[in-house]
Amino acid sequence: MEESSIQQQMYPHATCFGCGPANPAGLHLASYAATDSAEGLVVAQFTPWSEHDNGIGYLNGGIIATVLDCHGGAAAIRHAYLQGWRQTPGAPYPYVTAGLDVRYLRPASLDQPSELRALVTDAQDDEVTVRAELWWDGKPRATGTSTWRRWRPRVV
Amino acid sequence: MEESSIQQQMYPHATCFGCGPANPAGLHLASYAATDSAEGLVVAQFTPWSEHDNGIGYLNGGIIATVLDCHGGAAAIRHAYLQGWRQTPGAPYPYVTAGLDVRYLRPASLDQPSELRALVTDAQDDEVTVRAELWWDGKPRATGTSTWRRWRPRVV
Repeated sequence: MEESSIQQQMYPHATCFGCGPANPAGLHLASYAATDSAEGLVVAQFTPWSEHDNGIGYLNGGIIATVLDCHGGAAAIRHAYLQGWRQTPGAPYPYVTAGLDVRYLRPASLDQPSELRALVTDAQDDEVTVRAELWWDGKPRATGTSTWRRWRPRVV
Repeated sequence: MEESSIQQQMYPHATCFGCGPANPAGLHLASYAATDSAEGLVVAQFTPWSEHDNGIGYLNGGIIATVLDCHGGAAAIRHAYLQGWRQTPGAPYPYVTAGLDVRYLRPASLDQPSELRALVTDAQDDEVTVRAELWWDGKPRATGTSTWRRWRPRVV
């Protein structure tokens, strides 16, 4: 595993709630390329805050979606960078989430860290698809398939 | 619109991060049955916190997923209650999210409130499907289709 995270290497000034190193009140998810993986596996560890409750003492589904989204983004942006696909001039990031499909399989711990894994499953210059998983205690707890589209600045 | 929210009426002691009235550090989403709607429309207003940034000054996608999930849950649980479908003995809530599929259409404001709308689109005693939308400034910004399964207590 490399020493600095994908977020720190590629977007250190980002203020994203889930993973921006520069958001003082954010979750600060830090994703790393697994150096022992030939397939481009990206990993992270996420330790919830006590308020990230799902209502009965397990990890909240919205927070699970948040970290699956951000972790998938790190994998997508790293993959695109390695392919030489650069961001559109004027765009703050190369890609933006177009969709996120989360399946909740089992409860995840609110007290202990979960492990995140992500792999790019399909990639073209204008769209990248990532499958991310959240594991705890040896079992997958949730999966998230995210689709990332090339960011083309436009009027809101 | 009724005076107290679905959360306050149906699960006032919930500690869910997104919508639990009893979570001191949560988002406190409050969903209401729209009394002028024959179709069972459920509405809410969500005002983000400044840290809910997506990295460029708009509302974070993970937080959007969080409120679409919780708002869909309020619609699902209210619908089931009105049908007379009661929760399984021993289950803290009648339903649990099995899946959440979010489509991000346009950026949403970080400074101004967004409007949430939810409608149950399919319902049986053991599974309820909800379509929720997040609107800002007259346009839908994201949609979330959530599937709710009857909660049957089991070993984690």
